[in-house]
Amino acid sequence: MLDEIGHEMARRDDRGAVATYIPELADIDPDQFGMAVATVDGRVMVTGDADVPFSIQSVSKVFTLALALGRHGDGLWHRVGREPSGHAFNSILQLETEHGIPRNPFINAGALVVTDAILEGRAPKETLAELLQFVRAAADDDAIHIDADVARSEQETGHRNMALAQFMAAHGNLRNPVEMTCGTYFHQCAIAMSCRQLAMAGRFLVGGRDMPGLVARRRMRRILALMMTCGHYDASGDFAFRVGLPGKSGVGGAILVIAPGRASIAVWSPGLNANGNSHLGTQATEVFATRTNWSVFD
Amino acid sequence: MLDEIGHEMARRDDRGAVATYIPELADIDPDQFGMAVATVDGRVMVTGDADVPFSIQSVSKVFTLALALGRHGDGLWHRVGREPSGHAFNSILQLETEHGIPRNPFINAGALVVTDAILEGRAPKETLAELLQFVRAAADDDAIHIDADVARSEQETGHRNMALAQFMAAHGNLRNPVEMTCGTYFHQCAIAMSCRQLAMAGRFLVGGRDMPGLVARRRMRRILALMMTCGHYDASGDFAFRVGLPGKSGVGGAILVIAPGRASIAVWSPGLNANGNSHLGTQATEVFATRTNWSVFD
Amino acid sequence: MLDEIGHEMARRDDRGAVATYIPELADIDPDQFGMAVATVDGRVMVTGDADVPFSIQSVSKVFTLALALGRHGDGLWHRVGREPSGHAFNSILQLETEHGIPRNPFINAGALVVTDAILEGRAPKETLAELLQFVRAAADDDAIHIDADVARSEQETGHRNMALAQFMAAHGNLRNPVEMTCGTYFHQCAIAMSCRQLAMAGRFLVGGRDMPGLVARRRMRRILALMMTCGHYDASGDFAFRVGLPGKSGVGGAILVIAPGRASIAVWSPGLNANGNSHLGTQATEVFATRTNWSVFD
Amino acid sequence: MLDEIGHEMARRDDRGAVATYIPELADIDPDQFGMAVATVDGRVMVTGDADVPFSIQSVSKVFTLALALGRHGDGLWHRVGREPSGHAFNSILQLETEHGIPRNPFINAGALVVTDAILEGRAPKETLAELLQFVRAAADDDAIHIDADVARSEQETGHRNMALAQFMAAHGNLRNPVEMTCGTYFHQCAIAMSCRQLAMAGRFLVGGRDMPGLVARRRMRRILALMMTCGHYDASGDFAFRVGLPGKSGVGGAILVIAPGRASIAVWSPGLNANGNSHLGTQATEVFATRTNWSVFD
Repeated sequence: MLDEIGHEMARRDDRGAVATYIPELADIDPDQFGMAVATVDGRVMVTGDADVPFSIQSVSKVFTLALALGRHGDGLWHRVGREPSGHAFNSILQLETEHGIPRNPFINAGALVVTDAILEGRAPKETLAELLQFVRAAADDDAIHIDADVARSEQETGHRNMALAQFMAAHGNLRNPVEMTCGTYFHQCAIAMSCRQLAMAGRFLVGGRDMPGLVARRRMRRILALMMTCGHYDASGDFAFRVGLPGKSGVGGAILVIAPGRASIAVWSPGLNANGNSHLGTQATEVFATRTNWSVFD
Repeated sequence: MLDEIGHEMARRDDRGAVATYIPELADIDPDQFGMAVATVDGRVMVTGDADVPFSIQSVSKVFTLALALGRHGDGLWHRVGREPSGHAFNSILQLETEHGIPRNPFINAGALVVTDAILEGRAPKETLAELLQFVRAAADDDAIHIDADVARSEQETGHRNMALAQFMAAHGNLRNPVEMTCGTYFHQCAIAMSCRQLAMAGRFLVGGRDMPGLVARRRMRRILALMMTCGHYDASGDFAFRVGLPGKSGVGGAILVIAPGRASIAVWSPGLNANGNSHLGTQATEVFATRTNWSVFD
Repeated sequence: MLDEIGHEMARRDDRGAVATYIPELADIDPDQFGMAVATVDGRVMVTGDADVPFSIQSVSKVFTLALALGRHGDGLWHRVGREPSGHAFNSILQLETEHGIPRNPFINAGALVVTDAILEGRAPKETLAELLQFVRAAADDDAIHIDADVARSEQETGHRNMALAQFMAAHGNLRNPVEMTCGTYFHQCAIAMSCRQLAMAGRFLVGGRDMPGLVARRRMRRILALMMTCGHYDASGDFAFRVGLPGKSGVGGAILVIAPGRASIAVWSPGLNANGNSHLGTQATEVFATRTNWSVFD
Repeated sequence: MLDEIGHEMARRDDRGAVATYIPELADIDPDQFGMAVATVDGRVMVTGDADVPFSIQSVSKVFTLALALGRHGDGLWHRVGREPSGHAFNSILQLETEHGIPRNPFINAGALVVTDAILEGRAPKETLAELLQFVRAAADDDAIHIDADVARSEQETGHRNMALAQFMAAHGNLRNPVEMTCGTYFHQCAIAMSCRQLAMAGRFLVGGRDMPGLVARRRMRRILALMMTCGHYDASGDFAFRVGLPGKSGVGGAILVIAPGRASIAVWSPGLNANGNSHLGTQATEVFATRTNWSVFD
């Protein structure tokens, strides 16, 4: 079935537009499409460009959230909310009316707070090493690394993220120097993975005896709830409506989708729709969820 | 277990505040608490004030949405969105920036559009009769009726809903006279039901061979997805986080929660929290979901 | 000089677009242009279509504000602010964040409050009669009347103004039934005047021994200040920048401009610019202010 | 009369609160009050603490605007608007909805653009030297200088201004590195002057044969119009209403007020009202304008 989906996606004309605001990502061939499914019984199925590495970008927010909750527990929720924002991923509007507390950990402002939280008392290098270690353990793959060129490219053009960070610093919601938090954030977004690696890394959110037990069951459920309500920015409602599974997208074109108790699914296609989510990735996930009847609402 | 939850709720001190903006609802005793669970195998369990009728208010939006989708199909989505709003249930802000298209069918503006859609070409009386017939069929209970006093009370104080309706009329997003749409809406909100009746009525969203087949499976899934992302106004994310089940609340203090494939749950306690959702109702649902492990993310 | 300006305006190609949301106003010939200047020494000079009657629309807000201040004094400012809004004339955004208190008496919401204030304790007919009497006395012209067709046309399409009124009623900032306040407001906007009549009517804001003494000097100054900062909706800053005189515009294409101690100027041309102000009217006023050096900042 | 006002202000109990967000300014004695009037015929009258130097803060925006218009002419208006904002001085809301173009040159975001414009092609030192030269020439006083401690204090705590600058950089509306523009801006705000010096420096906006001819008459008028509509942030309408003269305030407690063709008035008292404008300064200016009848609307 995965190959069928791969063929269908190859025939689609409309592929969205590659994100251009990060120069290093602007040159990527939009025709690529890959998908991988890691099931609870240990199998991994792939189709298309499933072994081509890409920049996971905002999908990294799932891993940093898990780390930050591990470190700060529910105390984290004093600094970041749990509600869909109703605005774009990089909006600064709500930060002003809500006194520097971001709406949720998956919009950029919230993810900066999460990164700031895992940085506390540690150097950026250490923090990034810990993050990589977590991702590698989850994926059972020590080859996963950070793409330094992409990180540098983001740093040079990350004015909007720096604006968010400065704004939260003005409200006392950052504990580390703005440059340090932003620098760490830009590196975390630059983690490079293939669909196969990402599907493997997502298994810690599937549940099941043989899955990596990196977070407690209750926390796992809660991270999935946040992915369902907030994982696709201002298109989260639409994704829940069409796909019915918790997911997290990134502007690099990746989407990580979890079918609780069943599988971790990674899909990648660099062309984005108007909301900044992978165009083909969203469509492939919808087809997949329909054919498997894996919607959590079924 | 249900009785245990009932006893725990009876011992709680903080009960929230009864909604006062609808005069008829302001006098209700906030100490009441009821809960009912209708399972997929045909059993109904109850605790507390499970047979006391209350005003279902916004829970009615689930039934009108099902009716409107039945009548207009996906065409309805040209007039109302599917995204969490990030604002209060009666906010007019987004209507202005989004040209009279409400964010989702569960905020007041969206529900007015849905009501306007089921009114099309029919008199309010006929429309309300059809709605009652749907609810009675779902609940298998012909005693369910509309509380005329509550409807009148809402009509007299419904300036904010009328503002929303006028605003959408200005954008051409109402097809019937504003007074007619609002009048029908006020009556739909005034449907009176007990927890037992509401749990029964919710069964059409559970799925399963013996449940009332009032909507197609694919539509059922989609309604549940909307309840998950938008069912509790600007606390929808929090409800998903805590409870992990799709639900819809009303300012009368009711919450209808669906455990897909398992049960329809109705809980009622008239004291509300700051977001306008039942205070004890939310807590009871959280305890229930934790003890049953019925979260869709599990 | 006035004729010169008239000729120049006649040669301009770009004339803006006639307001279409009030059907009765949509058919007016946009090629018309008139101007009249009533000086402090009693002279009246005119050019172009200065004797063609038009709907004064929002220019009426100046007269109702003078009446309401006469009746309620500074108490009026508890119900309406004195700040530019930073939003369009019919915006509802700030009403929500500022609890039903409109920003100033010249945006629609504020003008509805002002009308509501002069209605208090009186029937709409009486109130409109008093308003007409005020305008006639100011203009020294008993022929000024209300165009009933325009009033009716506004009533039928005034959803947005009714939304504003309902919203303020929800916040307790209207004292009369919404329909009554809106009905009176629609009639006040439908006052018909020519440039000659409007320039005459504006003399009570000029100051000077021979001008109609309808408001105290201190109040006159304050009304002029409000016209300067808020008289052109979200283009008030630009009008002050270009023209340097207090003015009030209406969607019928009229602008009333006051040169303190010197003259009352009325200009009319029905084509509007993007901000809803008369396109040629704004240009003519700018040329006039430049040639006379009558800017208050000079 | 000036001494009378000085005595009246000394008797007032409510003095507002000193701005605390710039540490260097937080310790200033709020009981101080000074005022100076430089008339068109060359006289200077003073009262109270008129020779105590203070940080002029946002009053500096008047001087940088004059410089930027001298350098870029009307081209400047492509990068910054001319409308009152309807929001606080440091709001970032409108920047998002209006694509990085600030509403006017007197809110912080607009002033940053103006500073960026005078920096273009020059080093910060040169630019600040030119600014000081302009102010000194206007005031005919070479002792005017920048308080380095205040500038440093602002730099360390200026997260919100840096957020505004980063946000505009993200929209391509800054030409220099964010740090350079912000650093120059913090220094410009730290210019120290007494009331006497500031009243003298304001004379270039009075007009009249013996006043410093630093800007053309037409430009002078336009700067005054902007001061009238935007000079007091979100209390500009109120200042125009009460005082009737163009003015510009700063969080250091200074207000520069211009009576066109008559005088330049500087008032200073460090306690601020809720809008960030000098509490006694606003009151003193109102009394002064009432007693002199110098309102431009008179």
